[in-house]
Amino acid sequence: MRVEAAVLYEPGRPSPYAESKPLVIEEVELDAPGPGEVLVEVVSAGLCHSDLSAINGSMYAQLPDPIILGHEASGIIKEVGPGVKDMQVDDHVVFSFVPMCGHCQYCAIGRPVLCKHGNRANAHGTLISGGRRFHTLTGREIAYFTGTSAFAHFTVVAQESLIVVDRKLPLDKAALFGCALITGVGAVMNTARVAPGEPVAIFGLGGVGLSTIMGAKLVGASPIIAIDMLPSKFELARRLGADHTIAAGEGDPVARIRELTNGGVEYAFDVVGNTNVLAQAFKATRPGGKTIAIGIPPTDKFLSTHAAALVLQEKVIQGSFMGSAIPRRDIHRLTHLYMAGKLPLDELLSPAITLAEINTGFDRLAQGQVIRQLLHFV
Amino acid sequence: MRVEAAVLYEPGRPSPYAESKPLVIEEVELDAPGPGEVLVEVVSAGLCHSDLSAINGSMYAQLPDPIILGHEASGIIKEVGPGVKDMQVDDHVVFSFVPMCGHCQYCAIGRPVLCKHGNRANAHGTLISGGRRFHTLTGREIAYFTGTSAFAHFTVVAQESLIVVDRKLPLDKAALFGCALITGVGAVMNTARVAPGEPVAIFGLGGVGLSTIMGAKLVGASPIIAIDMLPSKFELARRLGADHTIAAGEGDPVARIRELTNGGVEYAFDVVGNTNVLAQAFKATRPGGKTIAIGIPPTDKFLSTHAAALVLQEKVIQGSFMGSAIPRRDIHRLTHLYMAGKLPLDELLSPAITLAEINTGFDRLAQGQVIRQLLHFV
Repeated sequence: MRVEAAVLYEPGRPSPYAESKPLVIEEVELDAPGPGEVLVEVVSAGLCHSDLSAINGSMYAQLPDPIILGHEASGIIKEVGPGVKDMQVDDHVVFSFVPMCGHCQYCAIGRPVLCKHGNRANAHGTLISGGRRFHTLTGREIAYFTGTSAFAHFTVVAQESLIVVDRKLPLDKAALFGCALITGVGAVMNTARVAPGEPVAIFGLGGVGLSTIMGAKLVGASPIIAIDMLPSKFELARRLGADHTIAAGEGDPVARIRELTNGGVEYAFDVVGNTNVLAQAFKATRPGGKTIAIGIPPTDKFLSTHAAALVLQEKVIQGSFMGSAIPRRDIHRLTHLYMAGKLPLDELLSPAITLAEINTGFDRLAQGQVIRQLLHFV
Repeated sequence: MRVEAAVLYEPGRPSPYAESKPLVIEEVELDAPGPGEVLVEVVSAGLCHSDLSAINGSMYAQLPDPIILGHEASGIIKEVGPGVKDMQVDDHVVFSFVPMCGHCQYCAIGRPVLCKHGNRANAHGTLISGGRRFHTLTGREIAYFTGTSAFAHFTVVAQESLIVVDRKLPLDKAALFGCALITGVGAVMNTARVAPGEPVAIFGLGGVGLSTIMGAKLVGASPIIAIDMLPSKFELARRLGADHTIAAGEGDPVARIRELTNGGVEYAFDVVGNTNVLAQAFKATRPGGKTIAIGIPPTDKFLSTHAAALVLQEKVIQGSFMGSAIPRRDIHRLTHLYMAGKLPLDELLSPAITLAEINTGFDRLAQGQVIRQLLHFV
């Protein structure tokens, strides 16, 4: 079938993207789902910093191109291939950006975000089967991004990339559960396992950072300290649960955090993906404290940590990918919390956009003017 | 009273120390124990790399001098000051190189190696009370090293620095429990909590590294991979439990570890205290793996870690100081294991030395000719 999609042919074009147009809106050919695969009509897809990193070439320069981005999405199943289990036509789904094979050593121990086959497929720009289903109208194969490629009206994905969700969940906003929310809340609940009354600092107030604040509030962390370069984000951060806000550009955030917490936080979350900020987060923790690295730094960047302090103060630095989630468990927990009014994710939403506006949308994201823009297809 | 001691007046003198004599053997004046303090006759004291780091100035350049080193020690209580509880004259004791106040936020949560008052006193070269008891014969105050200063025939220490041990424990070897053993075995049991069948790599085969191997064998880790620059240490490492040994100078240890473990170890222990080795340990772990930093790098050194791998592979880097021990619990566990024949610590012992031989002893340690030399006073 022919579907409308945003295709990235050339990473690294200069901003503003409204002019350089790295994402080309065009019709592409989409094959029918193969064995274990599903055709999904995309309802909403978020514009996330990880997509932006692929567009500007900082993170995924090694990915094959052309490629269709988009990994935070929701949709409706339209067709199932042979051998698909536990899901059927008309089911509502949220996408998982790491397909979970269910059988490798990491899936077996309940750490599906480390899935061997899923991560290998993502690195190669294919479905978990190794196949691809999108082609340009001139017959060129198009790579997958994280097995999802949701910046297309329809996409074919492996059943391992989908979570069936409650039909009562507003599908137009459900995209957020698959990335921003599960990454931020998961880092608090799963990676750090923050306990009530523990002090936390959250560096970076984008969609994931604000979700981290929501998670910290949910588990009773206190105080919750939010840090960003842009004071324009502080009002929302406070509404979501931040007790204190610190403008990173004014004075020394580490000294201010130490002062507010009598010596440092128990947990510092870096949601920027900048190794200098990560090093600041490390300094902001007290002895025995944990630095949780959520933001993904460019692949050529190295974290420089004071090693004697690491040992003498028994500090911990821990990576958190997709919130150390078990998506088949956590997406349900998060949607229940949302429908019970305990996760105010609507607060994250900036005005929705259409596929035609996607390059402009990424300009807004790059400039920090918006939190989470959703692309609406339906 | 007058006691014989080894006094460090000037850190950073060149090796060989047998010639430059950084440790001056002389009589010093020792005050009687104050409130909560105890006079101990030192029976045995180990020559450890941390003492060497103070002598060569790489780690403790900021410590006051003159200072009496020595932190891994055992002895017999000869006199107790007012208010001393739970210990009396003639008790056998092992020293703890972090005095544990018992009341600060860290002692309260069962993490006494982070004790606020103990670590502050250690940084200032005093007893936990803030006082000092050693003086030169010309009246100059001598600083404490880790509240112990065991390179003296007698020393006065806070009761918070002592663990009373079973009289059946051979006191001449008991020094080892307070540093090498508790640090190495503790890193496996407490910091990492290694489970049976988990693959581990141990970088650096000094007294602590070999104790780490003993701990790994004790908990059933497998395979146990030992790495060192000096192949002369491999026979002992194998006898203590190493399944594989790798000469760090020949080829790429990381590639060899990956090959032996089908992708990397669950836990990599750096017992060298060199940030390059620590970075190698990080690379040798599989996704989800933990790097445990035990060796204390010089204070001006920084660990450089590939930050994207940290996040995407959910790796962990964790500092382990004194084996994350609770000395009042762990020293007893370790002594029971030793007396039951399950911790072959005698294997670590190089020939014992006298106080007069201490500079030569540190030359041997610096050259890697020995594992653990004990200084015997009694």
